[in-house]
Amino acid sequence: MPTFHGHSLIDGGRRRGSATPFQALSPMGLQPLPGDFFLATDAEVNAALAAARRDFAACRNCPGSARADLLETIAANLLALGDVLVERIHLECGLSEARIHSERARTVHQLRIFAAMARDHTWLDPRIETALPGRQPLPKPDLRRLLVPIGPVVVFGSSNFPLAYSVVGGDTASALATGNPVIVKAHGAHPGTSELVAEAVLAALSSLGLPAGFFAMLHGHGETIGISLVKHPDTRAVGFTGSFSGGRALFDAAASRPDPIPVFAEMSGLNPIVLLPGAVRERSTEIATLIAQSITQGVGQFCTKPGLILLSEGPGAEDFRCALAAAITEVAPAPMLHAGIAESYVAGCQHASGHPAVRVLARAAAAPDACEGAALAVVTDVAGLLADDSLRHEVFGPFAMVVSITAPAQIETVLLSLGGQLTASVFAMPGELAPELLDSLTQIAGRVIVNGVPTGVEVCSAINHGGPWPATTDSRFTSVGPAAYLRFVRPVTYQNTPDALLPPALQNANPLGIARLLNGVWSTAGVTTAD
Amino acid sequence: MPTFHGHSLIDGGRRRGSATPFQALSPMGLQPLPGDFFLATDAEVNAALAAARRDFAACRNCPGSARADLLETIAANLLALGDVLVERIHLECGLSEARIHSERARTVHQLRIFAAMARDHTWLDPRIETALPGRQPLPKPDLRRLLVPIGPVVVFGSSNFPLAYSVVGGDTASALATGNPVIVKAHGAHPGTSELVAEAVLAALSSLGLPAGFFAMLHGHGETIGISLVKHPDTRAVGFTGSFSGGRALFDAAASRPDPIPVFAEMSGLNPIVLLPGAVRERSTEIATLIAQSITQGVGQFCTKPGLILLSEGPGAEDFRCALAAAITEVAPAPMLHAGIAESYVAGCQHASGHPAVRVLARAAAAPDACEGAALAVVTDVAGLLADDSLRHEVFGPFAMVVSITAPAQIETVLLSLGGQLTASVFAMPGELAPELLDSLTQIAGRVIVNGVPTGVEVCSAINHGGPWPATTDSRFTSVGPAAYLRFVRPVTYQNTPDALLPPALQNANPLGIARLLNGVWSTAGVTTAD
Repeated sequence: MPTFHGHSLIDGGRRRGSATPFQALSPMGLQPLPGDFFLATDAEVNAALAAARRDFAACRNCPGSARADLLETIAANLLALGDVLVERIHLECGLSEARIHSERARTVHQLRIFAAMARDHTWLDPRIETALPGRQPLPKPDLRRLLVPIGPVVVFGSSNFPLAYSVVGGDTASALATGNPVIVKAHGAHPGTSELVAEAVLAALSSLGLPAGFFAMLHGHGETIGISLVKHPDTRAVGFTGSFSGGRALFDAAASRPDPIPVFAEMSGLNPIVLLPGAVRERSTEIATLIAQSITQGVGQFCTKPGLILLSEGPGAEDFRCALAAAITEVAPAPMLHAGIAESYVAGCQHASGHPAVRVLARAAAAPDACEGAALAVVTDVAGLLADDSLRHEVFGPFAMVVSITAPAQIETVLLSLGGQLTASVFAMPGELAPELLDSLTQIAGRVIVNGVPTGVEVCSAINHGGPWPATTDSRFTSVGPAAYLRFVRPVTYQNTPDALLPPALQNANPLGIARLLNGVWSTAGVTTAD
Repeated sequence: MPTFHGHSLIDGGRRRGSATPFQALSPMGLQPLPGDFFLATDAEVNAALAAARRDFAACRNCPGSARADLLETIAANLLALGDVLVERIHLECGLSEARIHSERARTVHQLRIFAAMARDHTWLDPRIETALPGRQPLPKPDLRRLLVPIGPVVVFGSSNFPLAYSVVGGDTASALATGNPVIVKAHGAHPGTSELVAEAVLAALSSLGLPAGFFAMLHGHGETIGISLVKHPDTRAVGFTGSFSGGRALFDAAASRPDPIPVFAEMSGLNPIVLLPGAVRERSTEIATLIAQSITQGVGQFCTKPGLILLSEGPGAEDFRCALAAAITEVAPAPMLHAGIAESYVAGCQHASGHPAVRVLARAAAAPDACEGAALAVVTDVAGLLADDSLRHEVFGPFAMVVSITAPAQIETVLLSLGGQLTASVFAMPGELAPELLDSLTQIAGRVIVNGVPTGVEVCSAINHGGPWPATTDSRFTSVGPAAYLRFVRPVTYQNTPDALLPPALQNANPLGIARLLNGVWSTAGVTTAD
């Protein structure tokens, strides 16, 4: 059993902040867990950003291999925490050991992807146009462009991925890889996990002799130090995964700064699934089972959980409902991530199931204890869904609403009423899916899935995890996969700059040996200039 | 002499809007020019966005070659307007014929760059990861990602580039190339120019049989229909070049939407030039002449005009001031773009020259008429500059302030006080420029120039025209050069989608023949899949 100091970790050391302690509550019984933790104050926010500002030059200018070593060492340290970390996550978040192992593997994978990116330098995206001193009517200057880090990035740890989207999750890894110092606001539901992981980062920095200002971790509330972090003059970007209200508050705080900064918030969604008539007719039971698993996996606490099923009425539709009901009923209630989420889930279920336009299709049998989520499926019709906005809000947890589609044109109508989504799925028999419907799905979502469920986000170059508002604050970026770094970099062009003063990626000799767009052609060749 | 109907152009036709006409005023004498123009109202805003929304699917799904043909036809039509267009621009904007020819050439170049981009499809940036059905513990799905247009883009025509950053400028070309319908709010200072160019776009759409909703042009004020355009639910992004107050107002309007949208506003800047002691000692006269030209070129009405010179005191500094003064004094006053800009310029000059910390170094000799800008150079010291924010605001026009640097550390202090910049320049003798100073310049600006002036923006792949706030609203994007399209696209991933339903860029056979990141390797090969 580890002991916890409970302090924020800033500039390589501990700072307590406020004197009043809080404890983590286990979602399994709501008992306080070992460890007194202390909320950071604005003094800690200022100290963390001062260290980040001081060491930003070192972070952006150190060799990519140094940042790669850092990410790889963090990954190794994370693994070395072994069962101590797994056990604490289980206690704080109620996740199963298998899920924690899987999430840890994903987190390590992410850290290594970004380590490789830092090491191979391709993210710098160098573009060189050499001078044409004799061009008429005006000479062309020598122009060389690359991407540079934007500056200190504030990352809000999420509750539902205590590793993969928390202290050293994808936001942190992508920001650090590209030379941005990171300040993490730990999620209050897993402060012990956050301390263990943050100490692993500090150990990595220390063992590699890297400046302490590259990383900080603060305990505290979003409404207090969260806003202070977003408003701090030295903060240059924000990563967040969480609720719509939380994301909107951070976005508004950032937009109202004297110098607005980008907030990449991944917020909410219904991840609609469209079931076309042929698929319903031919595959209703199989599809119902698959969807029920997707709704209830991880107690429905994934941002890609499908929350709305557009069911084409006709042959097989009743079979689908029966099979979905049977599967949902059998799901054992399980602890949710924390009491707040469980309370919101209960409230969301009560609102939906008590709504006059809604009928309960199936509810998991056992009565849950205070922090457990029992699966719930409800049904409504298009008129009911469209008449009340509140039925189109996400219910975070193992809940889904089935809406009866009685005319094909209703599909488009419903989809357009939903707002932006992370994903949109469709089940269809061969030849059944019209290109126009697929096109519509791409208009509301960042990822479309054919004959599959949206849960299960593959971390790879072809993934997109983002979508139009309110799925995220900026549909132009993904938060998962290697392209996530694009949120935290900006281009800089050097004009007529002496070779020796250029960053290595732009020097004539191409000492990094990377591909560069050289006068319009990708090449690893060196540059020969007239002078 | 052309005749003008003065209407907004929406959905292929003319709409008058309000009944009260306005005229363009020539900056040369402030006489009304031929043509009655009419302000659009919210009804025109709604009509333009309705047409854009209706035709967005056609715009994004038509072949890239169709959009390429459109941009090339627009370029041809622009050239075919010949002297009629050149003359009207001269009358409305006071620009010289040579400058108009140069800007027209640049505009045509931009249209052709984006036509080539639309035609070769590389902007789609396709990334494919094929399925691994047997992977343990979970199968890997087939994932294919590409970039898609974000949706209708509102472009605000700028006053200082009536062609290159107006109706068919870089914002419009980059948005159209990538499949986004464009709605232009014409700048009120050149409505006749805007009508001529917009009619050329309509003729291009018509001759190619493309839907009318791809493009609209509205006359109107930023504070009225400008805000309505930004707030309209169907608007998905905004491009703007203009004042800080205008850009901030549009940014705030967009950020306060129920669904915020990105605004790419290029606003203001001082474009500082640092003169190091060696360069001052050895090259003062030559540099002064170069900088004086850069300050006064185009009556100082470029966003890259240098407005602040950090002059290292010591040998040559007085020579620099004398040479700058001599050059500034000789510049003949010339018409500014419009009366509002001329009034702001006079006010800015009066504020600076009347400031107790400021001394006038040189003023162009002749007394200007109402709309002419007379060059002005003033001097101050670091204490004076830092003591009053207002001295660090851009004065748009042929104005610059020289600040005396008496200790090297003051350079960094002054640079950090300025906020973000489009450019930062430094003059240095060989070996004189410290890497740390160059690094600092990259931190405040999007483009750094060594031994050169910032005016003259090369349109090429290695350019960056953007910078930290308040130079632009989002330093992660450029508004000049081929990368400008990145403002208006977002990724979409297709998961397990039948080949025939995929966009051509992602299909197995690679019918477009473009390079794709295929399982981690760039390749033009087709894809072989198990099924």
